[in-house]
Amino acid sequence: MRTMPDDIQRFARATLARLVAVPSVAAQGRGIDEASTLVRDILAAEGFAAELHPTAGSPVVYARKGSDAGPTVLFYNHYDVQPPEPLEAWDSDPFVLAEREGNLYGRGAADDKGELVSRLSALKWFERRHGSLPFTALFLVEGEEEIGSLHLSDYVEEHRERLAADACMWEFGAVDALERPTTFLGLKGIVTLELHVRTADRDLHSSYGAVVENAAHRMAAAVASLHATDGRVVIEGFYDDVREPSAEVRAMVDRLPDEDAGLAELFGVERFVDGVAGAAFRRRIFLDPALNVNGIHAGYGGHGAKTIVPCEALAKLDVRLVPDQDPHRVLELIGRHLAARGFGDVKVRVLEHLEHPVRAAVDHPFVDAAVAALREVYGREPVVQPNTPSSGPMYPFVHFLGLPVVGIGCGYPGSRIHAPNEHLRWGDFELGTAATLRLLERYVLGA
Amino acid sequence: MRTMPDDIQRFARATLARLVAVPSVAAQGRGIDEASTLVRDILAAEGFAAELHPTAGSPVVYARKGSDAGPTVLFYNHYDVQPPEPLEAWDSDPFVLAEREGNLYGRGAADDKGELVSRLSALKWFERRHGSLPFTALFLVEGEEEIGSLHLSDYVEEHRERLAADACMWEFGAVDALERPTTFLGLKGIVTLELHVRTADRDLHSSYGAVVENAAHRMAAAVASLHATDGRVVIEGFYDDVREPSAEVRAMVDRLPDEDAGLAELFGVERFVDGVAGAAFRRRIFLDPALNVNGIHAGYGGHGAKTIVPCEALAKLDVRLVPDQDPHRVLELIGRHLAARGFGDVKVRVLEHLEHPVRAAVDHPFVDAAVAALREVYGREPVVQPNTPSSGPMYPFVHFLGLPVVGIGCGYPGSRIHAPNEHLRWGDFELGTAATLRLLERYVLGA
Repeated sequence: MRTMPDDIQRFARATLARLVAVPSVAAQGRGIDEASTLVRDILAAEGFAAELHPTAGSPVVYARKGSDAGPTVLFYNHYDVQPPEPLEAWDSDPFVLAEREGNLYGRGAADDKGELVSRLSALKWFERRHGSLPFTALFLVEGEEEIGSLHLSDYVEEHRERLAADACMWEFGAVDALERPTTFLGLKGIVTLELHVRTADRDLHSSYGAVVENAAHRMAAAVASLHATDGRVVIEGFYDDVREPSAEVRAMVDRLPDEDAGLAELFGVERFVDGVAGAAFRRRIFLDPALNVNGIHAGYGGHGAKTIVPCEALAKLDVRLVPDQDPHRVLELIGRHLAARGFGDVKVRVLEHLEHPVRAAVDHPFVDAAVAALREVYGREPVVQPNTPSSGPMYPFVHFLGLPVVGIGCGYPGSRIHAPNEHLRWGDFELGTAATLRLLERYVLGA
Repeated sequence: MRTMPDDIQRFARATLARLVAVPSVAAQGRGIDEASTLVRDILAAEGFAAELHPTAGSPVVYARKGSDAGPTVLFYNHYDVQPPEPLEAWDSDPFVLAEREGNLYGRGAADDKGELVSRLSALKWFERRHGSLPFTALFLVEGEEEIGSLHLSDYVEEHRERLAADACMWEFGAVDALERPTTFLGLKGIVTLELHVRTADRDLHSSYGAVVENAAHRMAAAVASLHATDGRVVIEGFYDDVREPSAEVRAMVDRLPDEDAGLAELFGVERFVDGVAGAAFRRRIFLDPALNVNGIHAGYGGHGAKTIVPCEALAKLDVRLVPDQDPHRVLELIGRHLAARGFGDVKVRVLEHLEHPVRAAVDHPFVDAAVAALREVYGREPVVQPNTPSSGPMYPFVHFLGLPVVGIGCGYPGSRIHAPNEHLRWGDFELGTAATLRLLERYVLGA
């Protein structure tokens, strides 16, 4: 049963090639109309009632197919991709699907066009085996995931009736570095922001450093004021809304495999923050919020010395949130912290990401079906995360639609998503597609 | 008496044009041999016994003229200049002296070729008035001032016998923003350094931020750890070697004009560090050491958000030193401070500047003659600084040769030294040259 029929394999390759050929780079405003139309047409050709719904940004492809008699499974995917640059780092054209040594290369081959095609292939395969879909497959394919899903939450809220469903498949899934199948039932939230301070009209000769405020030093002090040395965030109220994880969630994290030694070697680090390892490492990465400095820039950074007092400084931060932290509230707390610590002149500006944290249902037949499907198809015990340490626009699916969510897909840690030579391993595609098929069979047919 | 004879004016313009025409950019290794030879030839043509002395770097021009019967005045100047870049920002060729609206434009026109020509003109004028030099004029013209005078201290120590003198004229002098003549009797010291930290092999996705050390954050914390909020340096032992200023030095600083309000407006700042103003401002800028962040750079600084944990960070610092701080000792204290505060992984590297602070004699006939000459020529009370807030290679002249030092010259705050359109105001040239003449007459002839 696990061997995908040849014609479905051919359909998958051909469909992925058509999708990759459209450079739907949301950040560059390219190929959005063409890609959304193509996705609608592909879904329509597969027998879906498929529509393009305008939003204030990129259109959403909305498509449904199947029978009202069974449950409704909502598939969330996106047709937009990251910019391909730097182009010279690619071994082949990013917008021409290329197969080499069992891998399919191209921008979006993995994130997220390959996943979309995997789901279409799983549904085709389901129909091949059972004649028809005794449930409803509902697709929501958006075009702004790579730029922060700016209009998705409003779209889901506005269309909550026609998006009513029983369960949601998240946009991706993957094996881990040890080829164990993984799934997850939630995501951390995120807010990205910029701090900026200006202390004078211009950079000054550093002989004035004894008396003038130094923007680089003020920014260093402002950024340093955010953490204690153990990595804990010291912004007042930052942890107030962190919900005590349930016993099931704690148990799930306790069952996760240890990753710290392997990651330490992979990253070239000797130890992690505050020396965490084992269970403490897992709790921190999965259950704790984090505030990260993505960059800090001020004054001279070139060769040798330039004796100036910089007049302005910039820092970029992201905050990874866990339930029930609210990104707006966290921004407010950061502003208050800076003012209280004497950094009222450091301005806070939100960047493109502002997503709520979410952990969907842990104890649900759809979750059970997913775990069983992975165990069966991969022949190994799946790794089940209550949430990933990363972020995405899952909140409206849980908050407005009340859905359980699982991530099953075709990824692996080496797939270079967002980077040159993005690719999908064909073996992952077959296994992920089979697992999706088996999840649907178990959930819908109970077998 | 204050009108420079026409032929000396012509000599000055022609000589400065010859010097500016040689692009003696030490940082680029250009024009050094040509410029040192030209300076030697110009001095020889003026009747000096002039020699080129090799060093481990650029040659030094050593020249003497006059009579052993009187005192010896050592003139310190340099023939190297800053790079002319950006070239497109110049209104005329930086290496062709150009006169426009009473200003002489060209790289080195002010710093320091114009000052050298002013001294030669003053000596020519002295001879015109008195027939000959009843003292010894001794020139030391080096070629590495703009790159940190790397070999000057060794040169002075090695040649201390032939450099024996009674007084030293520093390389420059200027009027201030209110056209008051100023002089100074010392310089702050300086050490420039770089801090570097690496926390991982590569930048990591910020979802790992909860557990991995963040280089940007570590550097921010390391830099922030160096100061208290009042601007005071909190490195243990940093102030231990700061000599209590003498009563004369304190009185001199008390007599200096208030600059804080004017500078605040010029710089576009609302207040100075710790709210200092008036006498407190002057004491801090002239008598206190300072540690300045020249730049700090880590991770992403471009448009929008990039959710990474940066793996390395760089900061550039300079420390402005006062007597009797030692730059080597200060470097050692910085290293110890970082280690003690848990930043042992932050590496310290010295950059090109490493100069001792110096305050030469305050109570000396040469100083008295300089102040009287400025008062007489400019018709205003001179501003006398025990040291400038800036730095330079004065230490060996005081330490090895035991000389009193004064700075008298032709600069003004708008002369754009080190920048495009560097220039000398001709009026400043005439006044500075006359003041030099009168200083020599008063010191040597007592009149």
